[in-house]
Amino acid sequence: MPESGVFIAVEGGDGAGKGGLIAAIVGRLGALGRTVTATREPGGTPEGEALRGLLLAETGAVWDARSELLLMTAARVQHVERVIRPALAQGEIVVSDRYVGSTIAYQGAGRGLSQAFIRGLHRDAVGDLWPDLTVFLDVEPVVGIGRSKRRLDAGAIDEGRFEGLDLAFHARVRESYLDQARTLGEKAVVIDAARTPAEVQAAAISAIGRSIGVAL
Amino acid sequence: MPESGVFIAVEGGDGAGKGGLIAAIVGRLGALGRTVTATREPGGTPEGEALRGLLLAETGAVWDARSELLLMTAARVQHVERVIRPALAQGEIVVSDRYVGSTIAYQGAGRGLSQAFIRGLHRDAVGDLWPDLTVFLDVEPVVGIGRSKRRLDAGAIDEGRFEGLDLAFHARVRESYLDQARTLGEKAVVIDAARTPAEVQAAAISAIGRSIGVAL
Repeated sequence: MPESGVFIAVEGGDGAGKGGLIAAIVGRLGALGRTVTATREPGGTPEGEALRGLLLAETGAVWDARSELLLMTAARVQHVERVIRPALAQGEIVVSDRYVGSTIAYQGAGRGLSQAFIRGLHRDAVGDLWPDLTVFLDVEPVVGIGRSKRRLDAGAIDEGRFEGLDLAFHARVRESYLDQARTLGEKAVVIDAARTPAEVQAAAISAIGRSIGVAL
Repeated sequence: MPESGVFIAVEGGDGAGKGGLIAAIVGRLGALGRTVTATREPGGTPEGEALRGLLLAETGAVWDARSELLLMTAARVQHVERVIRPALAQGEIVVSDRYVGSTIAYQGAGRGLSQAFIRGLHRDAVGDLWPDLTVFLDVEPVVGIGRSKRRLDAGAIDEGRFEGLDLAFHARVRESYLDQARTLGEKAVVIDAARTPAEVQAAAISAIGRSIGVAL
């Protein structure tokens, strides 16, 4: 009997440590012999990466919140159709750095668009695919922004636009993430990103194990 | 009393002669002393032109129909908010080379997305702004494609992707345009693009005159 695919999203504010956690997840699941596809949003396809460039780079473009939502969703359509659904159909584990939870948090709570509009678009355009498990890395905005500013100073440049927004924006994003986790129940785990990387990884991998039915 | 703005869209298949007609409209209305903004879709803003580049250039990108709809609509949000509404608020006449009618024709009838999805997105994202008059230049697909291929051979390259689609696609687009015109009633005029440019221009300018309450 083929194993079924599992879709895991990792969400969290800037500087929460999503990238390092995903590398650890990929290593641990790969060691079990599972095929793991690590991907990211916006992006994950050539078309989506082109949209990522338009949305996140500091090009002087000023996007209306509704345009931003439509571009994020268009990138997600490409990602789901070309990468996520095919990998799941092959029984793979897909781990995505951000997914629709980011859109609900950033374009919804952050930029003020209604959840009904965002969720309706996710249903009609993306086909209502939701993760089996969403790992929320919870970080105080002031801590996360400090971390990611240090990374920007060290040369990472492509996420500058959202990181330049104010603390009140990032506080709304964080609250949305916590609300989403409460609503998702067993399909979510919230991990305090202030813990050590080893502790964060252990907590995430344990939750993933429960999700895929393996003790990890 | 300030004159109120008027929003005119020019629609039609490739090679219908929209560009030449718009130049003639701008010249005629400008001679009346009206301020005319000529613009186009997808495009009309720096952000929209960047999306136009992603959508229409032959880059090897393969967009899902739903992604295409979302990007066209995102470009339209920018266009309406930054160009069309401000110009109308100043009492200007806005003439756009393509608008939502193209989306209904190309992504709807052509690519198979539902009208309900497209019109719902136009309502929720674009704010349901419709033209005061839509001029439909009606051309047999085989004639229009022949004309635009000659233009492509002469060096125009940025509309290649849609022009490469088959005749059945363009026949569905044409039927959608004629359906839309019937539904719009007095807010539409259909002009046979096989007539001479002078005849097409006279018919369009006469219809615009009726729309703005001036004998032209």
